[in-house]
Amino acid sequence: MEPTRPTLESVARRAGVSRQTVSNVLNSPDIVKAETTDRVRAAIAELGYRPSAAARQLRTGRSRVLGLRLEPVRDGINGAVLDRFLHALTESAETRGYRVMLFTAPDDAREIDRYRELLDTADLDAFVLTSTHRADTRAAWLAEHDVPFVSFGRPWDRADAGAAADDHPWVDVDGAAGTRAAVAHLRDLGHERIAYLGWPDGSDVGGDRAAGWTAAMVDAGHDGALLRRLHARVTDGVGSGAAATADLLDDVAPTAVVCASDSLALGAMTTARARGTGLAIVGFDDTPVAAAVGLTSVAQPLTEAAHRAVDLLLDQLDGTGGTRSRRVLLAPHLVARDTSHHP
Amino acid sequence: MEPTRPTLESVARRAGVSRQTVSNVLNSPDIVKAETTDRVRAAIAELGYRPSAAARQLRTGRSRVLGLRLEPVRDGINGAVLDRFLHALTESAETRGYRVMLFTAPDDAREIDRYRELLDTADLDAFVLTSTHRADTRAAWLAEHDVPFVSFGRPWDRADAGAAADDHPWVDVDGAAGTRAAVAHLRDLGHERIAYLGWPDGSDVGGDRAAGWTAAMVDAGHDGALLRRLHARVTDGVGSGAAATADLLDDVAPTAVVCASDSLALGAMTTARARGTGLAIVGFDDTPVAAAVGLTSVAQPLTEAAHRAVDLLLDQLDGTGGTRSRRVLLAPHLVARDTSHHP
Repeated sequence: MEPTRPTLESVARRAGVSRQTVSNVLNSPDIVKAETTDRVRAAIAELGYRPSAAARQLRTGRSRVLGLRLEPVRDGINGAVLDRFLHALTESAETRGYRVMLFTAPDDAREIDRYRELLDTADLDAFVLTSTHRADTRAAWLAEHDVPFVSFGRPWDRADAGAAADDHPWVDVDGAAGTRAAVAHLRDLGHERIAYLGWPDGSDVGGDRAAGWTAAMVDAGHDGALLRRLHARVTDGVGSGAAATADLLDDVAPTAVVCASDSLALGAMTTARARGTGLAIVGFDDTPVAAAVGLTSVAQPLTEAAHRAVDLLLDQLDGTGGTRSRRVLLAPHLVARDTSHHP
Repeated sequence: MEPTRPTLESVARRAGVSRQTVSNVLNSPDIVKAETTDRVRAAIAELGYRPSAAARQLRTGRSRVLGLRLEPVRDGINGAVLDRFLHALTESAETRGYRVMLFTAPDDAREIDRYRELLDTADLDAFVLTSTHRADTRAAWLAEHDVPFVSFGRPWDRADAGAAADDHPWVDVDGAAGTRAAVAHLRDLGHERIAYLGWPDGSDVGGDRAAGWTAAMVDAGHDGALLRRLHARVTDGVGSGAAATADLLDDVAPTAVVCASDSLALGAMTTARARGTGLAIVGFDDTPVAAAVGLTSVAQPLTEAAHRAVDLLLDQLDGTGGTRSRRVLLAPHLVARDTSHHP
């Protein structure tokens, strides 16, 4: 007998069930009894039957694939946050039967070109945006084209408009709450003169993190003139953090410093060690580097952020969610290590 | 007039071309003149036409999607290597019109279950395996089921069999060459008593890295008894690396140490700093932590590894490659930093 390509029909015959049952095992396994599923799966394996995924998608109209732009590797320290978000997103999506498809793009305009291409050439149910920023054209494009999406990062243009703004679904981490917690932690340890080592103006994420430190220091009774001297603004990096810390120590002699990133904090550690001072230091993002060198840092709840992002997508895809909020702002938490000490 | 769903026909009419030309723009854009492509794309955009990807796949029989298991985040230091490989793979695949689909699995057996599921329910052209090891059942399963794949990591069972072994296509980095280069670098700086801080026996990657150090030290004329004392075997981690380095310093007083990972090397740095000794240290993997703390480290050529892996996959998918080797062993290179110094 000639070997022939196995079909749905031959699987059904081998398993002693109807074609519809085989189809159900493939497309809606939750409505088939476990014992029947096992028998059909055994027949599929024995015969080497492989249903066409494309045919299946035409039937169900759902690919169960989420698209995400993978950003280029940056300095490796801060970029680890998005890599960890990707791991959490992939795991969270998988538990709900979805998978993550990656693509790349050098900028937002090209990212939109990719959306267009992917919608033309690959079946995707939704997109996950990261690194949102002011005047972000991606969300508007997706909304106009009725493509379900969620962003990890709030729509910064509308941050001032509050809950009334007609926002798309998003999940973000409250950076201001993180630096506020860092100041509280350092004040509990006895520090009063707490500097802030942040980025130049113009970064939304940076502005959010700086605002938490400012508010906490104002609450603690410090006046504006001192706060201006305690606030350093430098581009991110270990070297720039080290130099700015040296300037701060010379100028205002802080006993502690809160940093906008672990890179800056690592620079602060280098200067403090070189000078033999006991500067207390808090970084941001709790990257692997922080854990490795004993740096206290503010940790983003990335697993929860990914889980909530998938929730918001499934609400759109399945029409569930109802009155559930489509704007999720999560509180970070502080991980105390060796650089948390008294003045 | 009722709005109707745009079709291939209406796009062709609007662009003033044939249906076949529209189809070519969608499926084989390289055979269509740029000016025509622009006109067709404009018509597609104006009408909001969206061809069914599933229908397209049924026509072309190719999804242009590669599957990769995303491993759980481990200690964050060494895990960064696979994240960087993923970035490079996604970018390399994208330039050839392929995308990467991620899935997760807690172990190899479940990874094979996922292959089965993905082949049943999603169109994938091939898989990329990572973290190969002895008695790895995944490659055998994929080969048996005629699924194209490549591994980042050699088939360790057959490593001794040499080029004659009937290997599947793989790309790997020559760990032994890396540690050999580390010893040569340290000897150039004047070191003779060079310790090795590695993992317990049983790790193929670990054995490979240790072998390079052993061979280089034997070549340098050291006898076996000293080498045994200079070779520490500990589980990976900053703490275990620090403790083992203290033992090595007490026992054989090396002036330099080559490490199997940056985590171990970071531990060695901690001990050297605490003791105020000038121990020269070389890590492995050139992780972001190494760059941040000034650690000399052996760097894997991850971009090239990813590129060659995609080459090997396309050879299988397109029937190209001819006599090109299906086994690619790449040499790592050393990145010298502050921990490279004279005895």
